[in-house]
Amino acid sequence: MTETVIKVAITGARGKMGSEAVRMVTSTPHFQLVAAIDTKNEGKTLADLEGMPNVEVPIYVDLHKAFSEQEVDVLIDLTNPKFGRKHMEIAFEHGVRPVVGTTGFTEDDIKELSQIAEERSLGAIIAPNFAIGAILMMKFSQMAARYMPDVEIIEMHHDRKLDAPSGTAVKTAQMISQVREPKQQGNPDEKEELMGAKGAEFQGMRIHSVRLPGLVAHQEVLFGGVGQTLTIRHDSIDRTSFMPGIKLAVETVMKLDLLVYGLENIIE
Amino acid sequence: MTETVIKVAITGARGKMGSEAVRMVTSTPHFQLVAAIDTKNEGKTLADLEGMPNVEVPIYVDLHKAFSEQEVDVLIDLTNPKFGRKHMEIAFEHGVRPVVGTTGFTEDDIKELSQIAEERSLGAIIAPNFAIGAILMMKFSQMAARYMPDVEIIEMHHDRKLDAPSGTAVKTAQMISQVREPKQQGNPDEKEELMGAKGAEFQGMRIHSVRLPGLVAHQEVLFGGVGQTLTIRHDSIDRTSFMPGIKLAVETVMKLDLLVYGLENIIE
Amino acid sequence: MTETVIKVAITGARGKMGSEAVRMVTSTPHFQLVAAIDTKNEGKTLADLEGMPNVEVPIYVDLHKAFSEQEVDVLIDLTNPKFGRKHMEIAFEHGVRPVVGTTGFTEDDIKELSQIAEERSLGAIIAPNFAIGAILMMKFSQMAARYMPDVEIIEMHHDRKLDAPSGTAVKTAQMISQVREPKQQGNPDEKEELMGAKGAEFQGMRIHSVRLPGLVAHQEVLFGGVGQTLTIRHDSIDRTSFMPGIKLAVETVMKLDLLVYGLENIIE
Amino acid sequence: MTETVIKVAITGARGKMGSEAVRMVTSTPHFQLVAAIDTKNEGKTLADLEGMPNVEVPIYVDLHKAFSEQEVDVLIDLTNPKFGRKHMEIAFEHGVRPVVGTTGFTEDDIKELSQIAEERSLGAIIAPNFAIGAILMMKFSQMAARYMPDVEIIEMHHDRKLDAPSGTAVKTAQMISQVREPKQQGNPDEKEELMGAKGAEFQGMRIHSVRLPGLVAHQEVLFGGVGQTLTIRHDSIDRTSFMPGIKLAVETVMKLDLLVYGLENIIE
Repeated sequence: MTETVIKVAITGARGKMGSEAVRMVTSTPHFQLVAAIDTKNEGKTLADLEGMPNVEVPIYVDLHKAFSEQEVDVLIDLTNPKFGRKHMEIAFEHGVRPVVGTTGFTEDDIKELSQIAEERSLGAIIAPNFAIGAILMMKFSQMAARYMPDVEIIEMHHDRKLDAPSGTAVKTAQMISQVREPKQQGNPDEKEELMGAKGAEFQGMRIHSVRLPGLVAHQEVLFGGVGQTLTIRHDSIDRTSFMPGIKLAVETVMKLDLLVYGLENIIE
Repeated sequence: MTETVIKVAITGARGKMGSEAVRMVTSTPHFQLVAAIDTKNEGKTLADLEGMPNVEVPIYVDLHKAFSEQEVDVLIDLTNPKFGRKHMEIAFEHGVRPVVGTTGFTEDDIKELSQIAEERSLGAIIAPNFAIGAILMMKFSQMAARYMPDVEIIEMHHDRKLDAPSGTAVKTAQMISQVREPKQQGNPDEKEELMGAKGAEFQGMRIHSVRLPGLVAHQEVLFGGVGQTLTIRHDSIDRTSFMPGIKLAVETVMKLDLLVYGLENIIE
Repeated sequence: MTETVIKVAITGARGKMGSEAVRMVTSTPHFQLVAAIDTKNEGKTLADLEGMPNVEVPIYVDLHKAFSEQEVDVLIDLTNPKFGRKHMEIAFEHGVRPVVGTTGFTEDDIKELSQIAEERSLGAIIAPNFAIGAILMMKFSQMAARYMPDVEIIEMHHDRKLDAPSGTAVKTAQMISQVREPKQQGNPDEKEELMGAKGAEFQGMRIHSVRLPGLVAHQEVLFGGVGQTLTIRHDSIDRTSFMPGIKLAVETVMKLDLLVYGLENIIE
Repeated sequence: MTETVIKVAITGARGKMGSEAVRMVTSTPHFQLVAAIDTKNEGKTLADLEGMPNVEVPIYVDLHKAFSEQEVDVLIDLTNPKFGRKHMEIAFEHGVRPVVGTTGFTEDDIKELSQIAEERSLGAIIAPNFAIGAILMMKFSQMAARYMPDVEIIEMHHDRKLDAPSGTAVKTAQMISQVREPKQQGNPDEKEELMGAKGAEFQGMRIHSVRLPGLVAHQEVLFGGVGQTLTIRHDSIDRTSFMPGIKLAVETVMKLDLLVYGLENIIE
């Protein structure tokens, strides 16, 4: 069986996430990087830039030009919602399937982009979180809560983090509450002798936020049942954890003819 | 919405598992225990026996008689394969749906019992393991391996256990290998300086068995991916851990018209 | 090397903890059970009682009589503070070393009992917690906090427990605060978006209480430092976890000539 | 109370570990970096080099010259055994206390360097591992094994690692075996049905090596006792984990008048 090579363009190729994506694409045998989009360096190739893989991939400042001069199957865009939307529209125009990772799209954005994708029968994937292990953790938690409705979430992050609980913890609790029969957990006569010990309350579930130096980004979802517990845990070290999810999205978007929002919806 | 009450009979009601099942059924509002099958005590009720819930449930030695005198929806049988098969056949004869927990059925047993179930359009569930958390752990592990194919299994049991690795660990590895692309894990140039350090090898995966006093029955399935790990863990304290799974099976078998083998196949 | 046999008496021998102690003493080769103190059954032996080891150990209702008729080295008392104090005084009177496990002694009790022990040059050990693993967890946590002052405690118990945080968690935090330079942990600009997420505050440390069915008694002390974390965790299944600590105390009390309060003070 | 400032020189200041040490020293209020030793850049200051903190610290190629021109209390040397020994001798000559992190010193090296330190009444610290959390894990494991002699070690590293088990796992097992009564663990009738499942054997203890992408460097030491387990775990993310240990060594070496080998020997 020969695997068809997927031709990829990447925006923000010199950025933190973009440069990781460049490394991922150039080291995946059945992917081919055909264009890098940058804010400068028009006419150079990636091999000319320091810290980039030594590949002769042309750099473009103009996305239209990139799509006109190169045959592109998929655009990877890890910039921001403002540019993300524009880039998706240009991609659709040129028959290119976009894979976009950003958190700020509005519901209207998604609705309108879905419409264009459907009209043109083009696959597209937008995902606020590409860490495939985190997606699996959330999906499994939702499935488990149907059978083991007593749940506590413990999320652990480095001690510079500003918000508690984390966005992922709240997202997990929301996904669980879609399937879990509402219930108040614990002993109704319980006394919390030090305020906050029991954690935050979310529809009867409990969420705890741990903040310590030496931690990066971790979450444990703990289910209790008669005589047993089930634990689902994700540990993330750094931004490279997004790459397997982006790789999966690039492969999957080729088989789609509509827009999918959320990596959890392409996982079986 | 009114929930229909399910009428239940239990074999081996004085046994270790049977007596736990009696407690579970009598404390579940929409279940009703209508008959207890025992090797003696014909004519008495559970309330007459020490250590049993104080309920006036008649005891029968003969299963036929129990099914003739009482209206029974579901038979819970946690005895052994020899009796289990016989009990299932009698149940089918009387239009009773069996829920059977035992590990020793042959493929022929299952095939023949399936046929009877289908002929009579009666639901039936046989499960070698009713610990719902363990079933979820195995199911999620199989799902995760598709996306994160690097896996190690660490199972931990009390130090009186005779076999290593545990049956659950081997079953988990088998379920994973059904979906995982075969791969040899780790560094090909690795040197195992103390024999056995790397654990047992199963189709390129690794299995480790920990045996210590103070442990009961635990298993951790650890998936590694770029920049992240995903851990799925089940901890079991005692045999009460089977009860939520039996409860689910009793509820589910009422909606079935064929035999299902394995609790994992009734979980969505 | 011959090991001298230690002659032991046990009060409350039919109680939950007492009967475990009977099992421990009778199965330890260098211990000899010489008397069992009970509220009834005077004149019988343990072998006459159901559920007891089949040993011909005389049962006494009166502690004075037991100490007069039998040569006793150590009294194990796991009853309650009211009886415990009385039992200790009688033991001291007869030259018997007491090992007492109870949580309710006042500071005055301990001061007065210490005085008697010193006057008579008799060893004595009172410990509110005999779970040796829990004691090690607390001791190591105190030692670690000197070098890694950022700490969070996560304690996990069954969901019938009434108090939060647990006594052990508070005791651990107190022991840590004796050596730890006071510091406010985490980001000073942090926003707790769901109240309680950050847990209870204890001198700048954080304590989290998890309550779920299927849990028994567990505690994790998590230390964060630059580029690393250290975790110390204790899992307890049942009351047998107290036995190794009681055994150690019986051995140690024979070498003491004063009262020691707290198992942590006999561990090196 | 005013804290005396400690004047520090660092060799290999542009190296991986050296540059982390530069960052640590310059961000510690009671430390002052007075000289950086390099293989080139004589006459420049750190502020002239890219990727270095913007501090006007003079760079020297010759260690003798650095110690002559600058008043130095402590030399941090994280190079290699060959240079390490030479650098220590020069430091002693100039009355400077060395803190050296390297794994390759021979017993003779250490003996001879100890002699010089004693003759000159100068503190010195050599440590093969400066990760303070790892040192605590090993020390606590040794202490715990006295009371809970059933032990298994699970070490987990990235899947590019070449040796199994890790050096830290073997060192931990050795430290434990110094205090633990030798015992064969587990059920004597146990059957290992898949070879290697039980892990490597070290004086009756068991060691397991897990190798997966997404892991960095982790070790769990698991102690089992009657009714309980105790777990001591260290997780390391990157080389910055060495800095708190080096900081502690710099502070401690000022109070020593002899050579100490191993960070565990300066921890109380």
